[in-house]
Amino acid sequence: MITLTSDFGSPYPAAMKGVILQRTDARLVDVAHDLPRQDVRAAAFWLREVVPYYPPAVHLVVVDPGVGTDRAAVVVRVGDHAFVAPDNGVVRPAARALDGDIDVFEIDDSDAASSTFHGRDVFAPAAADVHEAGVENIENVAGITPAADCVDLALPDATVEGDVAHGEVLVVDDFGNAITNVPGEFVADAASVRVNGERAPVEPSYAHVGVGERLVTVASHGNVELAVNQGRGADAFGVQPGDSVDVKK
Amino acid sequence: MITLTSDFGSPYPAAMKGVILQRTDARLVDVAHDLPRQDVRAAAFWLREVVPYYPPAVHLVVVDPGVGTDRAAVVVRVGDHAFVAPDNGVVRPAARALDGDIDVFEIDDSDAASSTFHGRDVFAPAAADVHEAGVENIENVAGITPAADCVDLALPDATVEGDVAHGEVLVVDDFGNAITNVPGEFVADAASVRVNGERAPVEPSYAHVGVGERLVTVASHGNVELAVNQGRGADAFGVQPGDSVDVKK
Amino acid sequence: MITLTSDFGSPYPAAMKGVILQRTDARLVDVAHDLPRQDVRAAAFWLREVVPYYPPAVHLVVVDPGVGTDRAAVVVRVGDHAFVAPDNGVVRPAARALDGDIDVFEIDDSDAASSTFHGRDVFAPAAADVHEAGVENIENVAGITPAADCVDLALPDATVEGDVAHGEVLVVDDFGNAITNVPGEFVADAASVRVNGERAPVEPSYAHVGVGERLVTVASHGNVELAVNQGRGADAFGVQPGDSVDVKK
Repeated sequence: MITLTSDFGSPYPAAMKGVILQRTDARLVDVAHDLPRQDVRAAAFWLREVVPYYPPAVHLVVVDPGVGTDRAAVVVRVGDHAFVAPDNGVVRPAARALDGDIDVFEIDDSDAASSTFHGRDVFAPAAADVHEAGVENIENVAGITPAADCVDLALPDATVEGDVAHGEVLVVDDFGNAITNVPGEFVADAASVRVNGERAPVEPSYAHVGVGERLVTVASHGNVELAVNQGRGADAFGVQPGDSVDVKK
Repeated sequence: MITLTSDFGSPYPAAMKGVILQRTDARLVDVAHDLPRQDVRAAAFWLREVVPYYPPAVHLVVVDPGVGTDRAAVVVRVGDHAFVAPDNGVVRPAARALDGDIDVFEIDDSDAASSTFHGRDVFAPAAADVHEAGVENIENVAGITPAADCVDLALPDATVEGDVAHGEVLVVDDFGNAITNVPGEFVADAASVRVNGERAPVEPSYAHVGVGERLVTVASHGNVELAVNQGRGADAFGVQPGDSVDVKK
Repeated sequence: MITLTSDFGSPYPAAMKGVILQRTDARLVDVAHDLPRQDVRAAAFWLREVVPYYPPAVHLVVVDPGVGTDRAAVVVRVGDHAFVAPDNGVVRPAARALDGDIDVFEIDDSDAASSTFHGRDVFAPAAADVHEAGVENIENVAGITPAADCVDLALPDATVEGDVAHGEVLVVDDFGNAITNVPGEFVADAASVRVNGERAPVEPSYAHVGVGERLVTVASHGNVELAVNQGRGADAFGVQPGDSVDVKK
């Protein structure tokens, strides 16, 4: 199985799939191709949320603002999973979320047919080759060699001081929910909290408040989420990815 | 085969797919994940239009504004098909469109890992389990028990008085066509009709009028559709889903 | 393998997939369903860019502004590939990009269940039938007969006069890059060029200029592309598909 994640929109992912299907009959599963463009951190967050639910797979990840520069192309192996991606840290949080040691390999991209579409010309063939060889045999794949390490990227942690958590918005999902890095446990015993000064109820899910009303919930990722029942929490709370969020009990 | 339908956008459906693929090798087919958010009626309409074209399948449907409340989670079996969905009526019109008696089962969701993402934590595993057991053996799936009935949802019917049909817009499709509930037969013999007072020609398809011009047609769903050749009929006719539409011959 | 390309948005492609899966177990691969609506030329461009990367396949292509008129429905065979599409030229540039002679067949669409959704009622069943028969046996498929020729569509060529290339914008991709028909070789030895009078650097890829800055690059399709690093080149250069572009060295 090969999963595909990018910020390519359409139809560039289809070119990657063609390249892969020339080399393997693997099942292909799209994670997303409409991630925020060139936003390595958002992609890192979503991969971390999604990949742990998958059986062993090769994960092709191309959010690659540095394409055509000297950034490396890497394969990162953790247990039965392998990530094939630009070396910009995008896969590191997901790799940490899996069990196992991390092995890093570098892909030789010196012969890439283009300098703007390594998804098609470097990463797709590498993902197919890793899949065909087997994740346990990456060492045997031509053009892929062991590397010392890869770029790290850590999603920021919230800090807690007494009854206030200082965090930030990591991403806004397609519903408009603002997902923060404040751990859900922080609000577990609160009936309501102040978010950047304004009070909102803490509820188990959206429909526990009226349609159009604001709430704070602990969503499926385990973090504090700023939401509106059948509306866009990010708009109602006035926040965007990267904005700081103080949650006061 | 498991089909997937939701209003999740991206990348939440990918988490559902991972959960499913941990449990089964079934073919996965996306029906849509960009349906109008929390719009149970629109999803019900589209499922009714699409599902009858499928071979036997398990249909995972998650348009679920009531997630995390006491709404039930159900499996609805009709012939060789099974729907796995929240008990909000979303699958009922599609179930009626298939041949066969309807059997209803309830899914035990008391152990759901989240209260906001039952697509991943309740419906995806249930769909995989139903697929693995076989639609004829739902009775044997752990955590799924027979139920008396499920919520019904009936798409509204148009009424005809003499030469006027009183209907409404059910959905607007991605082309901007306004799909009504007025039966196509009503306009079958008309060269033109008045729609909410304004005359428009009745044509077999879009290109029978000039680019940018309005028309009324009987589209693939068998209903009267308000359209513009290479344009957005809903805008030209000034209608939205739920708006009433009078069609006068 | 059957690939699917359309301007249908969602969920109409799912109806096509159901029809296909009633007839074949083929792998289905989406090329794109969000192509610019009714834009035959844009679809022709993208198919030409994507299809050559695929192994032998049946390519179902439905960008069909003339649906329900007397335009024909065709199958175009080139080598191990077959295109199933309306006869509006949309597949011709892709067919030329493949190796082999072109054989044309016509699909009998006189019994189509609808006059507005031939994707579901004509092209999907034909694609499945061609896949099941095998591309080499199209002659044996019921309802498909040899035809003399099909509509041609040629993407326009740029002209070069001395140090100026007169071209046009073919498409704008989802990143906002404006892809022209000026051959990449024209700018291969230039450090910068004037595009419609304004100077921009020629760079191997986006990140060779600062974030938000304009550049000219030779992208993965081999043509001159007007871009902005992490921005929308079409907006910065003030161009849309069809606009003329003069590139002066």
